[in-house]
Order: sequence, then C-alpha cells, then structure tokens
Amino acid sequence: MKQKLSIVTLGVENIEKSKEFYEGVLRFSPTKDSNENVVFYDMGTMQLGLFQWEELAKDAGVDKAGEGFRRFAIAHNEPSKEAVDTLFAELKEKGVKIVKEPEEVFWGGYSGYFSDPDGHLWEVAFNPFTDLT
Amino acid sequence: MKQKLSIVTLGVENIEKSKEFYEGVLRFSPTKDSNENVVFYDMGTMQLGLFQWEELAKDAGVDKAGEGFRRFAIAHNEPSKEAVDTLFAELKEKGVKIVKEPEEVFWGGYSGYFSDPDGHLWEVAFNPFTDLT
Repeated sequence: MKQKLSIVTLGVENIEKSKEFYEGVLRFSPTKDSNENVVFYDMGTMQLGLFQWEELAKDAGVDKAGEGFRRFAIAHNEPSKEAVDTLFAELKEKGVKIVKEPEEVFWGGYSGYFSDPDGHLWEVAFNPFTDLT
Repeated sequence: MKQKLSIVTLGVENIEKSKEFYEGVLRFSPTKDSNENVVFYDMGTMQLGLFQWEELAKDAGVDKAGEGFRRFAIAHNEPSKEAVDTLFAELKEKGVKIVKEPEEVFWGGYSGYFSDPDGHLWEVAFNPFTDLT
C-alpha cells in the first residue's frame, strides 16, 4: 500500500451550509468534479471532501449513530506565529467558532483550534521544526 | 487561508498498537520527528498523525466524551479495480477488519472500507475520473 492519502471526507449535516463556510469564509475553491451532493477541494496532493454524514455512514455500511468527540483533527500550518494570529483574527471577525485561542504549546509550536459548522476540529499551527505549509 | 491541509491527526487508544498496524501491517514509515507520544507519516504534501485520543481532546480543549460514528473517512485511491482487490486480499490475510468489501459504487468508481484498530474508517477506491493515487 503506497503511503499516500487521497481524500479526507468530512461528513456534514448540510452541504450548502458547509459550502458557505469552506468557500464563503475560508475561500476554498471546489474542483470541477464537485456537485450538489459531494464537494471536493484540492489541498496539495490530496483533496478534502464534503459529503452528507448519513450518506457517508451508508456508503461505508456502518451504523450512523454517534455523538461527541470524533477523535480526529485536521491541521493547517502557517509559516509564523504572526500568520496564525492574523488568520484567527480574520476567522473571528467572520464569526467562526474559535475552540481554543492560539498559544505556545507543549511540543514547541504555537497553535489554536477552530471548528467548522459540524464541529469538525481544525488546528492552525506554526511549527518551527517542520514546514508543512 | 491557503488551501492546504498539513496534517490529519487520528486520536488513538494506544500508540504502540497503532504503530503495529500502520507500520507493521500497512508498512508506513514514520518521520524522524516521531516519538513515543506522537507519530507522523508523510503522505504526499501532508502528514498523517497518530496521537493518544484523550491527549488530542485535551490539546484542543474539548470534552473527550464521544462514541459511535465519527463522521469522517480517509480515502486511499488505487490505480485500478484489480489493485483495490489485491490490497483487500492482502489486508484480509493480515487480519485487518474489513468494513465493506469492494464493490461498484453509485459515483461510478469501485471501493471498499477497512478500519484501523481504533475504528477509523479507510476507504480504498479506484476512481476512473480523477487520479489521486
């Protein structure tokens, strides 16, 4: 199995509402393969996907019941602490839910968290050791 | 905000057990930044991370309580239906939990699902329209 991740699909309540967030607020551009049922965003060598969460459960053939912490987070790295602060200031101004204000963290970086309309966690981090921006 | 995803961090119960799965079974190689508390795998322009799930909740400052469907899935694309079948045969032989056998799916591709030791869903797909292998 090649060490490659192709898509991270987020199960969302409402595709339109999620598009407003990812395209209207974060300013992502959907791929031309996107439609009213599924949306993809190019994110480097992989894509972020949005799909209605009950349909995602059905596609995988798993029970859709679930609640609370989802045990995963997406990280978006920025090139400096200042860039993290600037992004958080912009997100707050746009009404994005800030889960944790940016701060110096135990691993030596600087990071904060926001969430999308479905509560999926996004960390925004400056990592002085590894450049994943 | 640059349209770029840096890391997908999976919250896991036991890092050692997860390393056995991701390195022993899937044959991924950890980055040199990995240690006994956090593991990273290069996956193209981004990384997959493993972190103890309660620590992940604490890092984000969210309630750790949660159960059931997590409303996300990771997809790993293969270049053909045959490659998907071959990979599933290998995974089954290694005792990996198959969530859904590969089959023709509604969007015109061919896909199945397996899960990691923590129940995180991995889709393995052949997509005849978009090459994300």
